[in-house]
Amino acid sequence: MESHGKPHQKEQDGDLSPKPITLSKYSNRVELKTLLDRSDRGAALAGKRVVIGGWVKSARAVKKDSPPPPPAVVAVPSPSSGGDQAHTTANIRCTEIIQSKMNIFRRFFDVLSGSGKTYPIFDKTELAGQKAAPPPEYVFYFLISDGSSISSLQVVVDSALSTVPATQLMALGTCIVAEGVLRLPLAASAKHVIELEAEKLLHVGTVDPEKYPLSKKQLPLHMLRDFSHFRPRTTTVGSVTRVHSALTLASHTFLQYHGFQYVQVPVITTTGFGEMFRVTTLLGKTDDKEEKKPVNEKDGFSIDTVKAAIKEKTRLIDHLKRSDSNREAVVAAVHDLKKTGDLASQLEMKQKSKTGTLVKSEKLDFSKDFFGRDAYLTASGRFHLESYASALGKVYTFGPRFIADKIDNARHLAEMWNVETEMAFSELDDAMDCADEYFKFLCKYVLENRQEDMKFISKRVDKTITTRLEATASSSLLRFSYTEAISLLQKATSTKFETKPEWGVALTTEHLSYLTDEIYKGPVIIHSYPKAVKQFYVRLNDDKKTVAAFDLVVPKVGVVITGSQNEERFEILNARIAEFGLSREKFEWYLDLRRHGTVKHSGISLSMEQMLLFATGLPDIKDAIPFPRSWGKANN
Amino acid sequence: MESHGKPHQKEQDGDLSPKPITLSKYSNRVELKTLLDRSDRGAALAGKRVVIGGWVKSARAVKKDSPPPPPAVVAVPSPSSGGDQAHTTANIRCTEIIQSKMNIFRRFFDVLSGSGKTYPIFDKTELAGQKAAPPPEYVFYFLISDGSSISSLQVVVDSALSTVPATQLMALGTCIVAEGVLRLPLAASAKHVIELEAEKLLHVGTVDPEKYPLSKKQLPLHMLRDFSHFRPRTTTVGSVTRVHSALTLASHTFLQYHGFQYVQVPVITTTGFGEMFRVTTLLGKTDDKEEKKPVNEKDGFSIDTVKAAIKEKTRLIDHLKRSDSNREAVVAAVHDLKKTGDLASQLEMKQKSKTGTLVKSEKLDFSKDFFGRDAYLTASGRFHLESYASALGKVYTFGPRFIADKIDNARHLAEMWNVETEMAFSELDDAMDCADEYFKFLCKYVLENRQEDMKFISKRVDKTITTRLEATASSSLLRFSYTEAISLLQKATSTKFETKPEWGVALTTEHLSYLTDEIYKGPVIIHSYPKAVKQFYVRLNDDKKTVAAFDLVVPKVGVVITGSQNEERFEILNARIAEFGLSREKFEWYLDLRRHGTVKHSGISLSMEQMLLFATGLPDIKDAIPFPRSWGKANN
Repeated sequence: MESHGKPHQKEQDGDLSPKPITLSKYSNRVELKTLLDRSDRGAALAGKRVVIGGWVKSARAVKKDSPPPPPAVVAVPSPSSGGDQAHTTANIRCTEIIQSKMNIFRRFFDVLSGSGKTYPIFDKTELAGQKAAPPPEYVFYFLISDGSSISSLQVVVDSALSTVPATQLMALGTCIVAEGVLRLPLAASAKHVIELEAEKLLHVGTVDPEKYPLSKKQLPLHMLRDFSHFRPRTTTVGSVTRVHSALTLASHTFLQYHGFQYVQVPVITTTGFGEMFRVTTLLGKTDDKEEKKPVNEKDGFSIDTVKAAIKEKTRLIDHLKRSDSNREAVVAAVHDLKKTGDLASQLEMKQKSKTGTLVKSEKLDFSKDFFGRDAYLTASGRFHLESYASALGKVYTFGPRFIADKIDNARHLAEMWNVETEMAFSELDDAMDCADEYFKFLCKYVLENRQEDMKFISKRVDKTITTRLEATASSSLLRFSYTEAISLLQKATSTKFETKPEWGVALTTEHLSYLTDEIYKGPVIIHSYPKAVKQFYVRLNDDKKTVAAFDLVVPKVGVVITGSQNEERFEILNARIAEFGLSREKFEWYLDLRRHGTVKHSGISLSMEQMLLFATGLPDIKDAIPFPRSWGKANN
Repeated sequence: MESHGKPHQKEQDGDLSPKPITLSKYSNRVELKTLLDRSDRGAALAGKRVVIGGWVKSARAVKKDSPPPPPAVVAVPSPSSGGDQAHTTANIRCTEIIQSKMNIFRRFFDVLSGSGKTYPIFDKTELAGQKAAPPPEYVFYFLISDGSSISSLQVVVDSALSTVPATQLMALGTCIVAEGVLRLPLAASAKHVIELEAEKLLHVGTVDPEKYPLSKKQLPLHMLRDFSHFRPRTTTVGSVTRVHSALTLASHTFLQYHGFQYVQVPVITTTGFGEMFRVTTLLGKTDDKEEKKPVNEKDGFSIDTVKAAIKEKTRLIDHLKRSDSNREAVVAAVHDLKKTGDLASQLEMKQKSKTGTLVKSEKLDFSKDFFGRDAYLTASGRFHLESYASALGKVYTFGPRFIADKIDNARHLAEMWNVETEMAFSELDDAMDCADEYFKFLCKYVLENRQEDMKFISKRVDKTITTRLEATASSSLLRFSYTEAISLLQKATSTKFETKPEWGVALTTEHLSYLTDEIYKGPVIIHSYPKAVKQFYVRLNDDKKTVAAFDLVVPKVGVVITGSQNEERFEILNARIAEFGLSREKFEWYLDLRRHGTVKHSGISLSMEQMLLFATGLPDIKDAIPFPRSWGKANN
């Protein structure tokens, strides 16, 4: 019975070479950021033995007796320098192969590569003869990334170390785990500070370049969405994910620092309104058990071909019977027909289970559903948060929110993730203060903690992003009322709006864009909306026409934070529920909070995906969440 | 157009009294923890003007010319002392009224209260005459809690300040916002250091004691579940929530500190197996629009009484016709019958919409569903995490997980929240190291950051909890294999297990309890399970009989963390999917990760609710999540 902390040296058993240093937790290897994201960019680590792992970003092969490769190609982004060159290798053009300016390498590369425009990794035909025997006289130069930071490490591998054919080893996306010694680059003019001379290849996870989506061609972001399980391997999505992660930690840090308690609100709810997803077990699950030897439709056994075969075989039997053939031939033909018939019913069964579960009764009785009643996916956590705010004061949550709107555009997701807060003893101004400071904290946090990623994003996605975030973080957000917004829009005589800005209309994307992109060129807070354009639970102002709601609106993206002081007065809330034609029964528990110990309270809701769009400059919300779900789209 | 940071002094306009100090953000009031959870317990703040808000935990009234109340009742928990007395007032017996030992107060109390056993707040009959004119000659002593910490503040209110009847003001759960001056208690023997002498009551949110569930009687935890929107107002649930919040922040802190990137995995998935909830829009939503003037069944118009009325009225019409009554009487009776008939059909319609949506076609075509295919609620985020680990190295997530098992017991929830990690370049040992350190970090974090709450929980829920957490945090967790576990169980000749411990059986609750409660008296890690008792994706060990999975099991609760090294070899994973009879189609994207750049990887999954049970000693998982969802139960 072993105790805690077993050493990870299994593969080095009986090996006399010095033990590799381990700078990372929960892994046998060293994370690249601990080597490269240091102030000395790794220089002091030269001579150390390490194990590293990662995926091939680019690969070159140079004849053993050739000089080391030119500095231009061995670029590793540096935290201290601009690292221009680096950024051309750390690329969403995942198929890019860095081409050497040296003739000798270019000649070698030309043999391997296809057209210079699309940069396919290899022309398979040309290399076919080499698969069995890789050229042993080459040295491979890899740029390896492990996603721990934007930096890549140059790994130098003698082809003699590999049992894997060169074509496979060099394919973009190949996973390599190597042990070796860190050294200063041989080429004095190299821009990178440190590289790894491999002594062992501990693991090679190959890629099938023909089927690997990222090796096909330069893929724009919208095409990458079809391969959401691979897209984090692109540098852009990698950087966006690290920014996303920073925003998440920043949210918890900011809110807990200011005394908010995290509360786990439910995803399945019986309260709510609008377009909701139903959660049910009444329809069963489309069966995922298959026959042990599944009938393979791809082999040509579609239901139609099988039915045609049955017809043909029946005709054959008739013919045999009529033509006085021997009995055995008829028996064999009948047996054959039976087998085909079995196949047909199997296929029909399978097709049925694909079409859906049969619903036997005409009416579904939801009192027999899993929860004994209708249940839906929540659209907001603020109702449930109010319950905890009425006990703990300041609370927040972070969770998925669902809207079943049949809309497919750059601003809609069926599943989004919101940070929501609720604060007892607070009013609209307090919620606006909270939104303002939280929002600016997020901007500042990303700038300070994701410098390298933001540098890359500003080069590849939006050149103005860093200055925009800096300006926002240090500015005072302007606040004005809906009424003032309408009068500003009415003064914009040179702009024609599709929806005429008249008091009472909901502000459209066009209106918001005019105010933030044209007039103020930055985020603003708009408050005190007409009661009809906000939800029933928002507190009615004394003018009886407007409600205590606000939106924090940013250029290009739109609303990032929405907030409100919710109605604490029982009679008014009760009347508003009736006004909206909602079932009071569903909201009895919510009304209870006003019946017993009611308090003024306000809260906010930040859309994490919209925030990420603002922080990165990405234009489409489907790129701001790892696995987007939208109308007609859910792939995994 | 105002700019940012509007002062919150609206209510003090024209007021010459000094401005209250504000120590809390986003609120006009001071959070009680900032007054009471100081090393001086607030002493240095005497003389300061503040606004406070909170809910009445207990209330007493003393005649104005009486001496100040006895020290025993004005207990405020202190961060530095044991605070025994404090804990009897901060009580899940929410209806508890602290009874003075003084005769004068007891006499007053006896008038107000009912039986001494159930402590109803007031006997309404006795006080009925006082409602219009509250006794102006009293001073109220409130203990007020705002949930920012376990501490309560004594607030002294002259009855002349209140326009609300004394019965309402003193009801448990009443919300009070008061402005006043902090002072040292008048009674020299008082245990509390500071109290508030109110000068204004800014808000009173009353309670209807007859309907307020928490005022009825002493409610055990399982009955409180029916009032999940009120239960955070009890001291126990308040403390548990603050511990829960600490565990959440601790998780993000620990994982991000160790280089894990947060990744948002989806809740809606098309991948999965087992008992899952279907997400659909095909069945519509049970309509929540009601008639503007709803037919009120409570007024006696149930469908049955209406049908009886129709029968009666039809009989009347027949009688009128037969008895040659005048035509007008018959017409009136027919008109009346028609109205009743309309009512009947309205009621029937209503009942129908309650029973469920009509399903027109016999077969449901899920290709016409919102996502164009079957979609379910996810049971685990690890599949999706693997995709990001294969690009970013170390990743984690925190989200809801769903299982539609029709089981209702103290260990099952339909919606749970898990923290899941995935680490590329890692094996089983690494995952066990990660589980071990993360788990101990959580124990330590709670002990260090929720001292007062843990003190209370250990008094009220589990006396051994603090020592148990301390022992765990500082110990080295024992690790042993499933095979060793079975042989240990087989040696337990004095214990009869319902399931005989033979190699190959899944370990039952009874087995786990024997190992952790009886043998080791602490958490252990059990690894290398037979392949049949774990899922298909776990990596097959070289013996071909066991797989690289583990469970971190704790006394009383069971499995808190489960983890595994998942299969990185394409051929084996492919074969295992077939072995389990699962549809390969659903797992094509998951197999893709093995086709292209595969890597050894492992991860863990911590059940936040199970962890909270371990950290608090609570016995039922429904008390470890604010709004529990389980078979047949979803209330809001």
